Amino acid sequence: MRAVIADGAGGPEVLSVGELPDPTPGPGEVVLDVVAAGLNRADLLQRQGLYPPPPGASPVIGMECSGTVAALGEGVTGWSVGDPACALLAGGGYAEKVAVPAGQLMPVPDGVDLVHAAALPEVAATVWSNVFMVAGLKPHETFLVHGGAGGIGTFAIQLAHQLGATVLTTAGTAEKLAACAALGADVTINYRDQDFVEVVREATDGYGADVVLDNMGAKYLGRNVDVLAIEGRLVIIGMQGGSKGELDINTLLRKRGAVIATALRSRPVDEKSAICASVVEHVWPLVSAGLVRPVVHGTMPLEDVAAAHALMESGEHSGKILLTI
Amino acid sequence: MRAVIADGAGGPEVLSVGELPDPTPGPGEVVLDVVAAGLNRADLLQRQGLYPPPPGASPVIGMECSGTVAALGEGVTGWSVGDPACALLAGGGYAEKVAVPAGQLMPVPDGVDLVHAAALPEVAATVWSNVFMVAGLKPHETFLVHGGAGGIGTFAIQLAHQLGATVLTTAGTAEKLAACAALGADVTINYRDQDFVEVVREATDGYGADVVLDNMGAKYLGRNVDVLAIEGRLVIIGMQGGSKGELDINTLLRKRGAVIATALRSRPVDEKSAICASVVEHVWPLVSAGLVRPVVHGTMPLEDVAAAHALMESGEHSGKILLTI
Repeated sequence: MRAVIADGAGGPEVLSVGELPDPTPGPGEVVLDVVAAGLNRADLLQRQGLYPPPPGASPVIGMECSGTVAALGEGVTGWSVGDPACALLAGGGYAEKVAVPAGQLMPVPDGVDLVHAAALPEVAATVWSNVFMVAGLKPHETFLVHGGAGGIGTFAIQLAHQLGATVLTTAGTAEKLAACAALGADVTINYRDQDFVEVVREATDGYGADVVLDNMGAKYLGRNVDVLAIEGRLVIIGMQGGSKGELDINTLLRKRGAVIATALRSRPVDEKSAICASVVEHVWPLVSAGLVRPVVHGTMPLEDVAAAHALMESGEHSGKILLTI
Repeated sequence: MRAVIADGAGGPEVLSVGELPDPTPGPGEVVLDVVAAGLNRADLLQRQGLYPPPPGASPVIGMECSGTVAALGEGVTGWSVGDPACALLAGGGYAEKVAVPAGQLMPVPDGVDLVHAAALPEVAATVWSNVFMVAGLKPHETFLVHGGAGGIGTFAIQLAHQLGATVLTTAGTAEKLAACAALGADVTINYRDQDFVEVVREATDGYGADVVLDNMGAKYLGRNVDVLAIEGRLVIIGMQGGSKGELDINTLLRKRGAVIATALRSRPVDEKSAICASVVEHVWPLVSAGLVRPVVHGTMPLEDVAAAHALMESGEHSGKILLTI
């Protein structure tokens, strides 16, 4: 099969399309004929050699895809060859075929075409598991999501808005902030010239944010704790601003707050399967109803993988970048 | 009534017994004739002016007591004048009488005398709410509690042991470690000459601690995160080792861990009442069965309050210090 191969670790130029053996489905696994694969920030880190795939995962980059079922492994029920599906992967998405545990396969929501379905698994599973399953965001709570114009951000804004939360978000340009507002953000903050702690406090009459979803890590740690409401939960899922930050335990204690750092990819298959089942139950109905939609920046053919990575690194995209096979 | 009065903020010598007006029960409150009051580390901070009582609370020190019901406020049901009880207080325990919301009143468990019952409310509510309700310690998980010989520590060891967890604890002398082992600690660690991270890893075959209960704050932050197991929860309830520490978010993220800092005293009455109800349901049966007992260092008369504070500051006690009225 054709698949993206990396010539060592480095910039986008190390990526090219080559030939690899077809995967075969192990017990409990399904092989998909891939139609499209979504790009994620973790893919850039993996390319740079900073985020090795978990043990047993494909060395091929790609944590989500859509496609049709090509083969079923021993013991798989509920799926048939030819079924359209999208999948949360531990790796291997940038290829013509990929093997995936059946629990990480999800149906394509009504009204979403098969290519755009590749934009859903990572963002839906990440946002649902972290914001709702881990941090327990409730209707009428306030939710601050950083990087509102990205793949995670655009999805988190829509989902939290639909579920009744007040949504505040940060981004770096007026165009991106307008896009966030159109998706349902109640308050938009330009991090280049506004202090998000001040803006959130003003907008909430001093209350703060019940849940913060952060991709900046150390750089925002102090201010994210400052902005928490009483019993607030800060969930860190990225470290674009470094990994070692000062934690003011006294501030956290006065707020009875929690700092949670988590990742989806390293979780065991049974946890990922439980998350996917919960996503299908709770998130897919909103997607099928057209209330939450995958925000796609654009699609590029698999052969343009290096250009796709360069685009993502530029930060000039808004929403998901997809590779089509 | 007689009550402990503080002559400004400072050392134990600022405390003495004086006269204050009797409290009257507001709606939903009960007034207790106090028999004994428990000392807590927060009392020392309050005396030093570092931990002001929450808004509306008595300025008199004392966060727990035992006694008999003296008067019922409007709307209180389930209690009668003369009933023995113990209570979780926002303040006011070092006195002949105290007013408390009825939800923070608990019956005295079978087999515990009324004086010793004053040693229970804070430790039981703190340990149960933080280790079990917040951190969700489960049977067969591993639990590390720092300061195993203190009031919180001795109770946490017993409760976690009885509920089926593997218990590891730190203390500073061989005598204290032996006392911890006798209460049910599986592994005891002398923090003066052993690295608790190494000892916990060795004792758990590299697994680590599912839950850490910490009273040291900044000083232990890095090592507490290091010692966490995958999906481990660090609960910080004290800052005896400072408040500003470096958090390695990358380590926390690889573990999908949580750092929670919390306090009991500042919680609203309805949360405290829910905690007390849960303690009565889950913890009191173990106390009544003699499986978990309050560890009391000794009792001293109210007039010796300054000496009692000096003893607690010395760290030479093991278990709770009680003032008798």
